[in-house]
Amino acid sequence: MDRTAPAATPSSPERPAPVLDLDLDQDAAQLTARLVDIPSESGTEKPLADAIETALRALPHLTVHRYGNNVVARTELGRAQRVVLAGHIDTVPIADNVPSRLDEDGVLWGCGTCDMKSGVAVQLRIARTVTEPNRDLTFVFYDNEEVAAERNGLKHLAAAHPSWLEADFAVLLEPSDQQVEGGCQGTLRVLLRTRGERAHSARSWLGSNAIHAAAPILARLAGYRPRYPVIDGLEYREGLNAVRIEGGVAGNVIPDLCTVTVNFRYAPDRTEDEALAHVREVFADCGIDEFVIDDHSGAAMPGLSHPAARAFIEAVGGTPQPKYGWTDVSRFSALGVPAVNYGPGNPHLAHKRDERVDTGKILAAEDRLRVWLTS
Amino acid sequence: MDRTAPAATPSSPERPAPVLDLDLDQDAAQLTARLVDIPSESGTEKPLADAIETALRALPHLTVHRYGNNVVARTELGRAQRVVLAGHIDTVPIADNVPSRLDEDGVLWGCGTCDMKSGVAVQLRIARTVTEPNRDLTFVFYDNEEVAAERNGLKHLAAAHPSWLEADFAVLLEPSDQQVEGGCQGTLRVLLRTRGERAHSARSWLGSNAIHAAAPILARLAGYRPRYPVIDGLEYREGLNAVRIEGGVAGNVIPDLCTVTVNFRYAPDRTEDEALAHVREVFADCGIDEFVIDDHSGAAMPGLSHPAARAFIEAVGGTPQPKYGWTDVSRFSALGVPAVNYGPGNPHLAHKRDERVDTGKILAAEDRLRVWLTS
Repeated sequence: MDRTAPAATPSSPERPAPVLDLDLDQDAAQLTARLVDIPSESGTEKPLADAIETALRALPHLTVHRYGNNVVARTELGRAQRVVLAGHIDTVPIADNVPSRLDEDGVLWGCGTCDMKSGVAVQLRIARTVTEPNRDLTFVFYDNEEVAAERNGLKHLAAAHPSWLEADFAVLLEPSDQQVEGGCQGTLRVLLRTRGERAHSARSWLGSNAIHAAAPILARLAGYRPRYPVIDGLEYREGLNAVRIEGGVAGNVIPDLCTVTVNFRYAPDRTEDEALAHVREVFADCGIDEFVIDDHSGAAMPGLSHPAARAFIEAVGGTPQPKYGWTDVSRFSALGVPAVNYGPGNPHLAHKRDERVDTGKILAAEDRLRVWLTS
Repeated sequence: MDRTAPAATPSSPERPAPVLDLDLDQDAAQLTARLVDIPSESGTEKPLADAIETALRALPHLTVHRYGNNVVARTELGRAQRVVLAGHIDTVPIADNVPSRLDEDGVLWGCGTCDMKSGVAVQLRIARTVTEPNRDLTFVFYDNEEVAAERNGLKHLAAAHPSWLEADFAVLLEPSDQQVEGGCQGTLRVLLRTRGERAHSARSWLGSNAIHAAAPILARLAGYRPRYPVIDGLEYREGLNAVRIEGGVAGNVIPDLCTVTVNFRYAPDRTEDEALAHVREVFADCGIDEFVIDDHSGAAMPGLSHPAARAFIEAVGGTPQPKYGWTDVSRFSALGVPAVNYGPGNPHLAHKRDERVDTGKILAAEDRLRVWLTS
């Protein structure tokens, strides 16, 4: 066990708080309510991580590791394939919506019900009940997903203990309304700067206008035709867009600097280097004085052609969808593990004060994963 | 006498401060030093206006008017023509450069030496010494030129007492290095707005990019060919320039608004309406959603073909230059009075801590104006 924590919450110096009880024999809906009632806003996950670790250590078929407030539990059955079920245990700030409340329609309300303690409950129920899976299982519970990327527990795990995450396929139980969302697109943000020379606007011929110099950049953007490539049967949609433009000194001064911030969202058949080369090529002859990479996160292949993925899709049903936004599946992809999102919550309810989840869907998600892992 | 002041400085409630002595029998260089030593930052001109008014009232050939801290003195000789000599009596903030200091090279240093108490000294010396001018004279001393246009004393005079300013020709004794600067260009500032629809940049096809929609505006600006028309023998230079561009919501959002601020500097052969119509026409088919007039000040014809102007140029010599920037000569033009700038200071030294004036040039400027007004 590794307890060198990157972001553990300090406990009382007098005596450690008692570990909270987590009964994995409840059904996934009851377990979700229990998880919601243990608050775990980003940065305060320790009590919940302790409870999860303790509950998992009680299961003899699992080997448990801990790193900071991240918990990893694995079967070691020597199966031909290994799959990951992963979820973050933190939530956005509570908004007067804890403890949880179950209404007469079987809907559970509260912070994290949807994003994503219902998914974590499904992970824990599978861990508890599927003791003889058809594939080796790795359960990953990580912290600080809802905050800055550098605090992300999965990132720290991948850096410190990549072997814990080795697998053939991964499922993140993020809310996806029980649709399989495959892979994810990459996102590259660059600053394109044009330079000129200041002058009084009454004597503009003495200067050179940096905003006018940006005209070819905007023309190129306006005329850009994005690709919609099909990968593993999913149609991705690229896009190249200005997300910001700024230039100007004063109302009577010829501006000497204009900056266009461009965001390229690209399909997973491009590597990071290829994406960057493409953007450089698009603007190659636009008179840009400075090209600055502001942010870059690579894409993730959906990996739906892998046998484990094909079996997964068959078991859970529905039609896989491409993921346009960037998600943590990309971290698995970077480790060589194809990954998808699949979880019970409705993603449109995440981060809302009236966040909620249909408990029937939690149970259904658990059932479908069990079918995949036992049939 | 009219003392309903738009911006008079309040004096002590116990007793009014004594009026400072201003000896108009000193030469123009000595008089400049005296004027500099009576501080008159914008808004604090009252002591200097009082001194000027008192000194001028002692001259029996002049009729003196006052409005706020603006003083107007006129000869009433029934001459065929009337000319104005005008100057502002305020300065920018003092920067440890008062009182004035005369160095061994005959250079006078201090706040306002150049801009434009040397010009005011020339006005006062002409008022004192040219008692039988060949043209009727109107001397205008006004306040608050160095601050916002709505406080400008000449503007207030023109609104309240336009008859005091009636004339055939006007000379502003602003620093121009003794070059005649004719007329001035107009300046029009408009905001050109394009609109789109917000969307997450990962799903850009759901929105519409307002920055991309600005591409035709920048292309039009980059391709614009300005006119350089010759008027009264002076070559003006128009210019149409973006002075600011802004758009953008966040690094991952398709922006729904982009604003390009454009400044049109135009020659005095266009009226304000014509200038506006020209800009509307230039951008007519650029897909602009909103066209907002932000600021507009008309141009001023140089009027160098007027006999009084021709005689003036002959008397002072040099080659008249066009004035590209907007100046108070435009206020005279709006009253139907052609106007030029002509003064002893070097305009590049205005507003500087090391502001100074060559005293020899003050005397030379006075001599040339006297030749014009007496020969």
